[in-house]
Amino acid sequence: MEPIQQTYQMPTADQQLLDNGQGVIDPDVFFELNTPPSNLADFESKLTAFVDYHQEKNTRLVFITSGGTTVPLENQTVRFIDNFSNGHRGACSAEYFLDAGYAVVFMHRQFSLQPFHRHYTHNASMGFLDYLVQKDDDTIAVDSQYGNKMKDVLSKYRAATESNRLLFLDFVALSDYLFKLKSGTRILARLQERVMYYLAAAVSDFFIPSQKMHEHKIQSAGGALTLTLDQVPKFLTPLVSVWASKGLIVSFKLETDDNLLVPKARQALTRYGHQVVVANMLHTRKQTVTVITQTSQQVISLSQEDLANHVEIEDRIIPQLVRIHDGWISSDATKACQQ
Amino acid sequence: MEPIQQTYQMPTADQQLLDNGQGVIDPDVFFELNTPPSNLADFESKLTAFVDYHQEKNTRLVFITSGGTTVPLENQTVRFIDNFSNGHRGACSAEYFLDAGYAVVFMHRQFSLQPFHRHYTHNASMGFLDYLVQKDDDTIAVDSQYGNKMKDVLSKYRAATESNRLLFLDFVALSDYLFKLKSGTRILARLQERVMYYLAAAVSDFFIPSQKMHEHKIQSAGGALTLTLDQVPKFLTPLVSVWASKGLIVSFKLETDDNLLVPKARQALTRYGHQVVVANMLHTRKQTVTVITQTSQQVISLSQEDLANHVEIEDRIIPQLVRIHDGWISSDATKACQQ
Repeated sequence: MEPIQQTYQMPTADQQLLDNGQGVIDPDVFFELNTPPSNLADFESKLTAFVDYHQEKNTRLVFITSGGTTVPLENQTVRFIDNFSNGHRGACSAEYFLDAGYAVVFMHRQFSLQPFHRHYTHNASMGFLDYLVQKDDDTIAVDSQYGNKMKDVLSKYRAATESNRLLFLDFVALSDYLFKLKSGTRILARLQERVMYYLAAAVSDFFIPSQKMHEHKIQSAGGALTLTLDQVPKFLTPLVSVWASKGLIVSFKLETDDNLLVPKARQALTRYGHQVVVANMLHTRKQTVTVITQTSQQVISLSQEDLANHVEIEDRIIPQLVRIHDGWISSDATKACQQ
Repeated sequence: MEPIQQTYQMPTADQQLLDNGQGVIDPDVFFELNTPPSNLADFESKLTAFVDYHQEKNTRLVFITSGGTTVPLENQTVRFIDNFSNGHRGACSAEYFLDAGYAVVFMHRQFSLQPFHRHYTHNASMGFLDYLVQKDDDTIAVDSQYGNKMKDVLSKYRAATESNRLLFLDFVALSDYLFKLKSGTRILARLQERVMYYLAAAVSDFFIPSQKMHEHKIQSAGGALTLTLDQVPKFLTPLVSVWASKGLIVSFKLETDDNLLVPKARQALTRYGHQVVVANMLHTRKQTVTVITQTSQQVISLSQEDLANHVEIEDRIIPQLVRIHDGWISSDATKACQQ
């Protein structure tokens, strides 16, 4: 490996503001230039144990990424760029994948929504203690008005965890996410076509390389602030071609401009050669999505009646993806027989 | 009022990337250029009712701001700049102010830590449902291992809310925060010197005016991205001199460079003419702070024994601020007698 200094000249403070970026680096270079997260070994040992367990059982497994990644603006981070995502899509989907018999690795932004817990968190009008009452016998119980629904949620949650079918892993910053994505897909690769990669996390497109970052909190005395961010390498390229080449890969495309949505989703399928893009608009993402494959395009929408009945669109998306996964596994079996 | 176009010329897309900012605008101009949050009327009516109640009771009141503000990078926001803060200082302080007999207005970043609830949220290894067990009688109870501490927390929380001494209000974006800060301080002003403003929120120093923002999600195809952010006007100026001129104002200074900490805190006191700055370093903020007034400087630190006993530093900061508030109220009474 070349010394880092030869790849990125450490800029002076003045150059930091004037530098127009170095173009898009190669994914491998990103890993050379950034430090792995301190808990990577723990991440790997938990995931390896989970995969060992499910390899024996022959279960299907989905690797869900969920929530937004952060991009620090300072090495000693006070400020960062974040991506809008509370993790609803991923957390909600995890429950429907469990219903469909999958084991779920839920790799989420720390403190974003989580399956099952999500029904009782991130609610602006109800905090943790608002669900509880002190009883005469000096114990604390859940207020009976919440009990019926919660019994159902709690028993599904316990069933998933007790049968070791739900593993929680987390990340915060972009580099944390990318190191874990690479390591995670490589650990999962031995399950081959039985793994679905459901990449619902909202990953930053731009970042400031550590070498170009301010060391301390940026001071506000100097008037306007100019930040130059580099483009994040396209990690779908090595993920599709090397890290997870046997798995079914589902990526997401979120846009705010309707005209760009389907063209950009198709462009991604062409560029990376993976199997599925779930395309959605920021403001209607809970009511309508388009599931796009190399050869098909299906709009899934909730009706007014569905909405009135609190149907979640993931209840329709996941079965569709499971069917695509069925096809992926049998085509792989066919290929294997033909060899 | 001048038409907005005369103050800010709408830039073309090319100009957006080249513009070096317009210097620092006046706080009043900020309010002219930005749209008030849609829930401002609701905010005002809740706060007014709370102040009405406590004006009659003659209680002291603290207005706590807590958590970080966001700065959107796009009008249809997918990306934003955030400030590091989980709201620990503010949430923790609220409990000690209640202990000290204050009524508390807790204006916090949505989903940041909240008083009392904080003991059971934002815990990477324990989700909501992990505290609960299903009982044989078909009810759901808190697992007995958490019961003892929770009884204490729950009863203090209930006492605070049932006596109407704790009001939760929230914000997300910088402009949301600033409109509510202005409106809130004006509503509280009639309690005069009985109000302490405890401004613990981590407020952005830089923002992109709506008129200069990208309308849609910024596309990543173009290589590096250059962002120019304007400096946020210094809102302590009108807050100290106009909005809350009778109250005791406590601001916070967080730095990562030790050499800048006290000089910058003193500079703030000189510039704005308010009463107290609580200065703290990012990495030691839970163990040591410096409480700085126009005439004094006191370091408050936890000992190793305190840390071993889980003493929170706010348990020491709040009594010190209450003493300063005592002095503020009596000096005001003296001034009133002398008139």
